[in-house]
Amino acid sequence: MIQITRESLTVDLVRKLLRKGALTNLKNILQKFHPADIAVFFNYLSEKEKETIFRLCVEIEKFPEIISLLEPSESANFLSTLKKEEIYKIFKNIHSDDVVDIINALPEELAQDILSFMKKEDVAEIESLLEYEEDTAGGIMNPDFFALEENTTVKDAVDSLREAKDVEMVFYLYVVDNRNHLVGVVSLRYLVTSKSDAKLKDIMNTDVISVRTNMDQEEVAKIVTRYDVLAVPVVDEENKLVGVITVDDIIDVIREENTEDMLKMAGTTEEEIVTKSTYSSFKIRLPWLFATFIGGVFASQIMGVFQENLKDFIALAFFIPIIMGMGGNIGAQTSTIVVRGIALGKVDVKQFWHFIFKQFKIGILLGITYGILLGVIAKFLHGEISYIGITVCLAIICEMTIGSILGTMIPMILKRVNIDPAVATGAFVTTALDILGIVIYFFLASVFIF
Amino acid sequence: MIQITRESLTVDLVRKLLRKGALTNLKNILQKFHPADIAVFFNYLSEKEKETIFRLCVEIEKFPEIISLLEPSESANFLSTLKKEEIYKIFKNIHSDDVVDIINALPEELAQDILSFMKKEDVAEIESLLEYEEDTAGGIMNPDFFALEENTTVKDAVDSLREAKDVEMVFYLYVVDNRNHLVGVVSLRYLVTSKSDAKLKDIMNTDVISVRTNMDQEEVAKIVTRYDVLAVPVVDEENKLVGVITVDDIIDVIREENTEDMLKMAGTTEEEIVTKSTYSSFKIRLPWLFATFIGGVFASQIMGVFQENLKDFIALAFFIPIIMGMGGNIGAQTSTIVVRGIALGKVDVKQFWHFIFKQFKIGILLGITYGILLGVIAKFLHGEISYIGITVCLAIICEMTIGSILGTMIPMILKRVNIDPAVATGAFVTTALDILGIVIYFFLASVFIF
Repeated sequence: MIQITRESLTVDLVRKLLRKGALTNLKNILQKFHPADIAVFFNYLSEKEKETIFRLCVEIEKFPEIISLLEPSESANFLSTLKKEEIYKIFKNIHSDDVVDIINALPEELAQDILSFMKKEDVAEIESLLEYEEDTAGGIMNPDFFALEENTTVKDAVDSLREAKDVEMVFYLYVVDNRNHLVGVVSLRYLVTSKSDAKLKDIMNTDVISVRTNMDQEEVAKIVTRYDVLAVPVVDEENKLVGVITVDDIIDVIREENTEDMLKMAGTTEEEIVTKSTYSSFKIRLPWLFATFIGGVFASQIMGVFQENLKDFIALAFFIPIIMGMGGNIGAQTSTIVVRGIALGKVDVKQFWHFIFKQFKIGILLGITYGILLGVIAKFLHGEISYIGITVCLAIICEMTIGSILGTMIPMILKRVNIDPAVATGAFVTTALDILGIVIYFFLASVFIF
Repeated sequence: MIQITRESLTVDLVRKLLRKGALTNLKNILQKFHPADIAVFFNYLSEKEKETIFRLCVEIEKFPEIISLLEPSESANFLSTLKKEEIYKIFKNIHSDDVVDIINALPEELAQDILSFMKKEDVAEIESLLEYEEDTAGGIMNPDFFALEENTTVKDAVDSLREAKDVEMVFYLYVVDNRNHLVGVVSLRYLVTSKSDAKLKDIMNTDVISVRTNMDQEEVAKIVTRYDVLAVPVVDEENKLVGVITVDDIIDVIREENTEDMLKMAGTTEEEIVTKSTYSSFKIRLPWLFATFIGGVFASQIMGVFQENLKDFIALAFFIPIIMGMGGNIGAQTSTIVVRGIALGKVDVKQFWHFIFKQFKIGILLGITYGILLGVIAKFLHGEISYIGITVCLAIICEMTIGSILGTMIPMILKRVNIDPAVATGAFVTTALDILGIVIYFFLASVFIF
């Protein structure tokens, strides 16, 4: 039985051996690990430790598998220290789709060098894969699939299965006509239990779900998860079978998309998770913070208009942070619910008013609760200003209700005009609420106090 | 070929037929849809429309499959309008793990009623499943798996496969000893290509990865995705095989956990996505907003201490929103990067100081950039107050640097003490930053201005 290795224990052990310089020992241990485990604990090592481990791994048998499991940027990084012949040898032992990911991450010149070094036939397949956009079905598919002609008998199919080696996880057998058009699918289970002289066309299921090479990877993920299939065949414009996408690739897509959404909403991008450079992080975040900055400068200008009044009723200033904070918070809650709801297919942008009304009710309820609470506190602490309680109370109610409405409206509108609702939602909502909060507060103060 | 149905078109068509009252027509169309498609477009219908569609679906053949694909709460809701006998009939046609999810969502009394109505043997299996925690391997596994004794021949295995009906997606054949202990696994592909008189114990792979019934579902997801397996067998404390978890269940787990993290960070929970009641949403969000509220009240009290100074230098108040906003924003960016990094295994909490130092550098760089920008603006607009530029500039630098450090520290510390880093990160970070921002600003103002 394979023991599930615990990262922390493994990392500690590896570090200890590295410190001691017990490299032969370490190599023996690495040889026993599952390649997937090596790829995972790699994440926990420092750059220097990674280099040492990498040099040890080059010599072990499952090295190509490890390379295909690491982040492509990381693999590219390491491979670029090797000779062209060595890189070629490794590429020959991993799936073309993984080769393509690594080539994409290599420096342009080295990538070209290697491509020209590789044999003609290999390059043809890889070059055709390089043509697809990275985030489409063509970009994530594996071109080594298992397909047979429809007149093949079950017996011959089983024989071919015995000989097929380089194909990823076979559990469906795709059936094509004599022009390579996808016409059906047979599950291995069904194949096994069929008579050996039956032809594939007689036992195949013709209701096969396929995707086009140019379909967005998110759409592919939706189809695979909706129909609970383990793999989906990829066809070109002529319905010719060109590849297959397996469920493990789909899991990566789902993870990636979720990370993207989460980070975009917080005002950064998924590149920041991978990058090691402080300056890259700085550059990625700078523009997202600019929206808040501009909003803040606007808010300060608005306050400037009321500075004489503010001097007379200085206690009013004390409540500005809480009004803006509550608005920003409810805006974040609502927009996250809506963005996630859209991603999960639980929010239909066509039911625009239905969702706005629902969030309006929640916002106003929460606003009344916290408005009354803060109003009482304001009256109690600063009762010398008449109507301060009612002003603060109404300001919170308005700000929270608007926060709820904007948090619903903005992602839904973005989705409708085909902009990723996660992209701008965070920055849009908070900036709008910062400015509106100040305007509403001083408007109410003008009515009741000034 | 199955046409991938577009939700929007489907929903429009269904609505049109509903409005016309063309129910027979509608029923015919429903019959042609894939159950998964019906389950998806259900999400887009109003409560009233759902009821009508549900009544139509009851009569079509694939109804049990539709029921098992809907949200358990939704299925429970609909089923509770049916007679016990009818519910029983449906339960007999869906997998026990789905039955358990629905029973868990039914009102207590009705659940008991149905359990006592069901036949003895069915109830035994379901009751044993009900004992597992919902978010453990036992809670998500399917007890209908395909396992054979190690002395079975390949020929007999293929025959059993032909007879097995109720088992979910067979692609691995699990091998047990005569006491039902899991001892190996044979992939269907390998089975097909083996000699028919070979015994399973001779061809099986003994390196089978299994999980215990009490393992957290998130851990199970990690294992399945790491080792790229399509299913993982579940064993009890005695290593006896009790169920199997397939990759489609794992995708649900990943989606669920991601939703949970995103919503927790924004200050709400995943229940809000499902609930229809305004009052439930109100109750879920109320406590999360309280942290911001308390932070705001504190901040206002601190400002109260400086009210006389503030009156003399009223322009200082104008910059409070922007300082708090920039702090909150960088705090959200950093904590999201760290929380997501932990979830993806890219951030190791043992390298505490390494990550703090990295985020410190990013924070101080961004702080200097925006600090100088705002300092210049402040000097230009309110130059009548000497040192206002330097005060505002230093306040932004300090606030953003601290925002970056807290955004890194808080989730890492929570993870170390085994609290879900997503839970409290959002509220903790912003509240702490609101208060610290005010304190730092007024401290700097005391030094340079008051």
